[in-house]
Amino acid sequence: MVATFEPKQEYRVIGTRPIRHDGYDKVTGRAIYGADVKMPGMVWADALRSPHAHAIIKSVDTSEAESLPGVLAVATAADMPALEGKEVDLGEGTVNFKWASDNILASDKALYAGHVIAAVAAIDRNTAQEAIKRIEVEYEPLPSATNVAEALADDAPVLLLDLQGNDLGEKVSNTNMAAHNRHELGNPEKGFEQCSLIVEREFTMQMVHQGYIEPHNATAFWDEEDRIRIWTSTQGAFPVRKQTAGLLDLDESRLKVTPLEIGGGFGGKIPVYLEPIAAILSRKSGRPVKMVMDRKNVFEATGPAPGGKVRVKIGVDDNGKIIAATSDIYFEAGAYPGSAVGAAEQCVFACYDIPHTRIDSYDVVVNKPKSAAYRAPGSPQVAMATESVVDEICEKKGWDKIDFRLKNAAKEGTRRADGPIYPRIGLIETLEASQKSPHWNAPLDPDPDNGRKRGRGIAAGYWFNVGLKSAVNLSVNEDGVVSLVEGSTDIGGTRASVAMQAAEVLGLEAHEVRPVVADTESIGYTDVTGGSRVCYATGYAAFIAANNLADEMKKRAAMLWGIDVSDVHFQDGVFSSKTDPELNLHFRELAGKLGDTGGAVTSTGSVDLEDAGGGFGVHIADVDVDPETGKTDVTRYTVVQDAGKAIHPAYVEGQMQGGAVQGIGWALNEEYYMENDGVMANSTFLDYRMPTSLDLPNIETIIVEVPNPIHPFGVRGVGEVPIAPPLATVANAIHDAVGVRLLETPMKAGNIVEALEKENS
Amino acid sequence: MVATFEPKQEYRVIGTRPIRHDGYDKVTGRAIYGADVKMPGMVWADALRSPHAHAIIKSVDTSEAESLPGVLAVATAADMPALEGKEVDLGEGTVNFKWASDNILASDKALYAGHVIAAVAAIDRNTAQEAIKRIEVEYEPLPSATNVAEALADDAPVLLLDLQGNDLGEKVSNTNMAAHNRHELGNPEKGFEQCSLIVEREFTMQMVHQGYIEPHNATAFWDEEDRIRIWTSTQGAFPVRKQTAGLLDLDESRLKVTPLEIGGGFGGKIPVYLEPIAAILSRKSGRPVKMVMDRKNVFEATGPAPGGKVRVKIGVDDNGKIIAATSDIYFEAGAYPGSAVGAAEQCVFACYDIPHTRIDSYDVVVNKPKSAAYRAPGSPQVAMATESVVDEICEKKGWDKIDFRLKNAAKEGTRRADGPIYPRIGLIETLEASQKSPHWNAPLDPDPDNGRKRGRGIAAGYWFNVGLKSAVNLSVNEDGVVSLVEGSTDIGGTRASVAMQAAEVLGLEAHEVRPVVADTESIGYTDVTGGSRVCYATGYAAFIAANNLADEMKKRAAMLWGIDVSDVHFQDGVFSSKTDPELNLHFRELAGKLGDTGGAVTSTGSVDLEDAGGGFGVHIADVDVDPETGKTDVTRYTVVQDAGKAIHPAYVEGQMQGGAVQGIGWALNEEYYMENDGVMANSTFLDYRMPTSLDLPNIETIIVEVPNPIHPFGVRGVGEVPIAPPLATVANAIHDAVGVRLLETPMKAGNIVEALEKENS
Repeated sequence: MVATFEPKQEYRVIGTRPIRHDGYDKVTGRAIYGADVKMPGMVWADALRSPHAHAIIKSVDTSEAESLPGVLAVATAADMPALEGKEVDLGEGTVNFKWASDNILASDKALYAGHVIAAVAAIDRNTAQEAIKRIEVEYEPLPSATNVAEALADDAPVLLLDLQGNDLGEKVSNTNMAAHNRHELGNPEKGFEQCSLIVEREFTMQMVHQGYIEPHNATAFWDEEDRIRIWTSTQGAFPVRKQTAGLLDLDESRLKVTPLEIGGGFGGKIPVYLEPIAAILSRKSGRPVKMVMDRKNVFEATGPAPGGKVRVKIGVDDNGKIIAATSDIYFEAGAYPGSAVGAAEQCVFACYDIPHTRIDSYDVVVNKPKSAAYRAPGSPQVAMATESVVDEICEKKGWDKIDFRLKNAAKEGTRRADGPIYPRIGLIETLEASQKSPHWNAPLDPDPDNGRKRGRGIAAGYWFNVGLKSAVNLSVNEDGVVSLVEGSTDIGGTRASVAMQAAEVLGLEAHEVRPVVADTESIGYTDVTGGSRVCYATGYAAFIAANNLADEMKKRAAMLWGIDVSDVHFQDGVFSSKTDPELNLHFRELAGKLGDTGGAVTSTGSVDLEDAGGGFGVHIADVDVDPETGKTDVTRYTVVQDAGKAIHPAYVEGQMQGGAVQGIGWALNEEYYMENDGVMANSTFLDYRMPTSLDLPNIETIIVEVPNPIHPFGVRGVGEVPIAPPLATVANAIHDAVGVRLLETPMKAGNIVEALEKENS
Repeated sequence: MVATFEPKQEYRVIGTRPIRHDGYDKVTGRAIYGADVKMPGMVWADALRSPHAHAIIKSVDTSEAESLPGVLAVATAADMPALEGKEVDLGEGTVNFKWASDNILASDKALYAGHVIAAVAAIDRNTAQEAIKRIEVEYEPLPSATNVAEALADDAPVLLLDLQGNDLGEKVSNTNMAAHNRHELGNPEKGFEQCSLIVEREFTMQMVHQGYIEPHNATAFWDEEDRIRIWTSTQGAFPVRKQTAGLLDLDESRLKVTPLEIGGGFGGKIPVYLEPIAAILSRKSGRPVKMVMDRKNVFEATGPAPGGKVRVKIGVDDNGKIIAATSDIYFEAGAYPGSAVGAAEQCVFACYDIPHTRIDSYDVVVNKPKSAAYRAPGSPQVAMATESVVDEICEKKGWDKIDFRLKNAAKEGTRRADGPIYPRIGLIETLEASQKSPHWNAPLDPDPDNGRKRGRGIAAGYWFNVGLKSAVNLSVNEDGVVSLVEGSTDIGGTRASVAMQAAEVLGLEAHEVRPVVADTESIGYTDVTGGSRVCYATGYAAFIAANNLADEMKKRAAMLWGIDVSDVHFQDGVFSSKTDPELNLHFRELAGKLGDTGGAVTSTGSVDLEDAGGGFGVHIADVDVDPETGKTDVTRYTVVQDAGKAIHPAYVEGQMQGGAVQGIGWALNEEYYMENDGVMANSTFLDYRMPTSLDLPNIETIIVEVPNPIHPFGVRGVGEVPIAPPLATVANAIHDAVGVRLLETPMKAGNIVEALEKENS
């Protein structure tokens, strides 16, 4: 039984825009990030990484490195516990433990350029770097496969010899196919027979990186009791604990993980890379060991979003109804099986109510870093495909692009091919808001004189959001301020949005609730900051804890007034007697009068939420394309999105803008450019071209609020939805401008010129 | 209504001796103490201190100091907020705020040598020290009074012109008498008329210091939002917050205090000294500012135990019953009014059931540092007096010293002159255990050949213990380990003893509960670690939190088993179905199966305990005294004490031994030796002679357990009782050895020779 709520219309704190509680620390540069960690006796470590995309590791000789003065310890895969046959959910779905361990420290094979072969702890970073040069590795290089086509070719080099099978029960050994899933609804074959127009396209997308500014880091200390302390910038202290404990084969509570501030994650700071290595080097050296990646390491060896190819086929009838749709999704897992296909399946047709659907997805291992979550994992890639095809259908039929989407929009009661039936969702309201938006109603300016072509595109996107576990502790200070302890690391302003939900319940101002992000020994288990879940689920836990706190305060008021607790009323921050109008105290007044009514007033709240309530967004882009050079500028961009209820609208807008910007970068510029030997050619921010503020217009935002019935304040996750539509939005705008439909990302200048030449030839 | 408990006879964890949870960190030197704190941009500060014991501060010129390169800020009393007329309870009773501020930074007068006049923050410690030399202070020296006799003389220099009055309503302006309290029971005058022997003696005692190894320290950062973060070694993070907030006139919750490990406190690390100064210098410099005292500062300017004089008069009848007793207690408050007299009143006759009693106490300000709590504040001084007189009575009457005490022992129902009627207490059992002890029953060896004289002494002592507020949060890890967050800083092993009480409730091993001492934003309000309250009160909060946790776990078990929660039984760590014998899971098994039964299992417990249940101890000492030199060696020493219930017997024994050792040092060697100009002559550990392990025999211990009925496990505080008896125990042993009764402390060699010469003259 899931509780449902009737949202209020008026709030005191929710919907306002206070300065974030951690604002001063962040803008003054005072906030402590992982790379800022220093401690007595601390030493540095660095890693030797494979120069080969695919190679057998025949031998590793660390003796020269070990004899270098200042070197304290060396680690190789031989130091990792034997984990064959174990499986565990490391926060991204169940994985084979041996693979997870091998990804951290390669044992028999290097599977991507950048794969860690060994690591050295030394008295300083330079010595560690010197020492890794002295490690002698004998490789037997193998042919590599760095994309789906190569990896599925008949003569493809096989990366993993122990792939086990897939959801369809197909045996997949001696292949690079890690999984094949299928969902079906209705009868797509028969559905297509009823259609008057069927469009089918295949899209190819390059792997992209989250591009967070802060590199991965970890400091670990392994003590004499086999207790390990870890300090790291992470999306989840408890998931780091779980992963590292699993990889080191220790009980979880032997590890204490202290999360530092985090300079961006977007899903990429969920997996551990350095923590187990630093821990092992600490055990061997007896010192706290610190590791920080450089940018090349981050690109080459942490989890990007999969590239791959997506084929989508959609059929419509003459009434403008989508009758049938099918999709084949092939994702580059990277060197070990990935999980984005599962999410992509849920997103590919999520915006539409389609009676006949089939979705096939294929997870393919390739000689690139293991992919990780990246903001709505899998959704941008499939939205690129679906929304481009929808655009083409509307163009071919001459239908209004919003009217068509409204007619086919998923709504309460719609069943998706992968199973769920939607509860109350806000796609229709979001489409309607787009229709009424200033941007959509502004005529497109005529093409400029300089030969550039102007176009407008629109696309929708979806993310399902997740709930999971969160815990919050509260305590009341004598001056009325409430301390809030939470386990969710704060990437995007969640300290503020969680504190505001507690403040709303308690009748306090936002800054009268003081949030603290705690370590794994100081708060109940809390899942990762990801899946757009924190404001939703940790906020829900704060709501519960705050109500528990108010209940305890009621008892204290009753004690002070000498009345029965059932006679105490609490509303808008005021405790009052139901019978004696003289008796009333604001929360902060009562806090100052607790005296000897009992010990500290404290409470806890924890949730485990199965459902979250999905979110939809519609994006509108205007572009200028230079047909000669292919250079594309986004000149206007609007994000319309259902937030359920925006707790802190400025941070919701920030998420909408940030997601759009990342999506635009993905659309136009970003890619893993691989050399023929399987090595990434552009592993710097100079060559891996992310958009900056100079490249973009202000991103306009329109928040739609269709309350999520299963959250006390109606919150829906907002962080991931906005990266889903931009790829297709930009592609559709380019088509509108120059008349060619790009079937790939990035839609970089060269690709546009090529497409135009092909079109005109 | 105070809850009462019937203690169990058998425990699983309580009464065992596990290694303390913080043991490895402490023995490896890894634990972080206040002076270890480092942070980016941190600067150092040092203080200019008065060379005069008493002087008017006519002017302070900091301009030269401010112009020294590297100096960032200078603070004087002018930087402290105006606090005239405010009063606040700063953890040691209500005090005049202006005095508290003046003690931190002197405004109009310096009242003791070492009194802070100004402070400087600079880029390093040397620069700060150089700069303070350049501060020019114009003093007008005044005559000083450094003991009770001088301070109460008719022509005494008056320290404070605004003393307000006392409990008896006497006007005390223009005097150094800060307080005069009186308690009476029965009619002492008439009582003495019924006595066949009356002994009256006056004892003089010198001020002594707690002598903790770690000097006071504080690091503070005052940010742009007027939020202050403080890191310090303290006996209470919340009391530091309350005091510093009060002194800086800010709301408490603007301060966050993070307690570091503490290298001894014994009551002396309750007051703040450096925190407000470091905070002001931080505000002015924009940097984190660190201050660490040197040993001379600690002796001269932090709170020692008062010296003074105590007159005790006791009358007995021929049946061996004490009929009447009176006491006049004069304590050196130090430069500002103190609070030890209040405690001394409660202790002076606490061991005896006396029908007629009068107790007068006098708090006298003198030109020495303001006294602070020191382990059972006031009790050692008055026990010295009472137990010496009792010893003399027994000697004169030829009564057995234990039988006499048994006959007059306080017991359940005894009313003390200061009001309370005892609940169940353990003095009789402690005396009986002493009577049966190996030490008491071992014949005293004959005097050795070297001319030294051998003697044995015995004395009793009392401490009332306190309850107050404590909070504990718990959360369950998947591997069954429970994280315990507490607000009590751990001086003497309380992490272990609090964790063990939670473990006992939950059926876990001691190390399956993992304690964390939290900052003031991460746990509910918790009072000071003092008054021997932590094991008692924080343990009680842990008991409540653990029971709440077990209740939540019962709900989860019921959910897993699909039965009603009322059908779940929990005992000895095992959850079971009351009806189905197949259904049973140990706590740690259930912890691993919580899965999706809900969010994290967490709980809180908090207490506010008015009563605590007092503790009694009886000490036995053998000494060898060299009559020629006065040198005294303690050759055997036994502590017998009622612990109520010893949660961790090794730490109880450690407290008993530590208290005895401090008392022996106080008895034989320690004193503030003041020069005529009011300056301490022996402010180093070389000259202030504390006993080392080479000076002492092993301290034998006998734990008596008379359960405290108002604690779930019967705990009584044990930390302070053992410092009460040693002064008199040693005095009585010296008398037994050489036949003279020392009426002063320290009973140093010179004083013994002098007393022998006087006796023999």
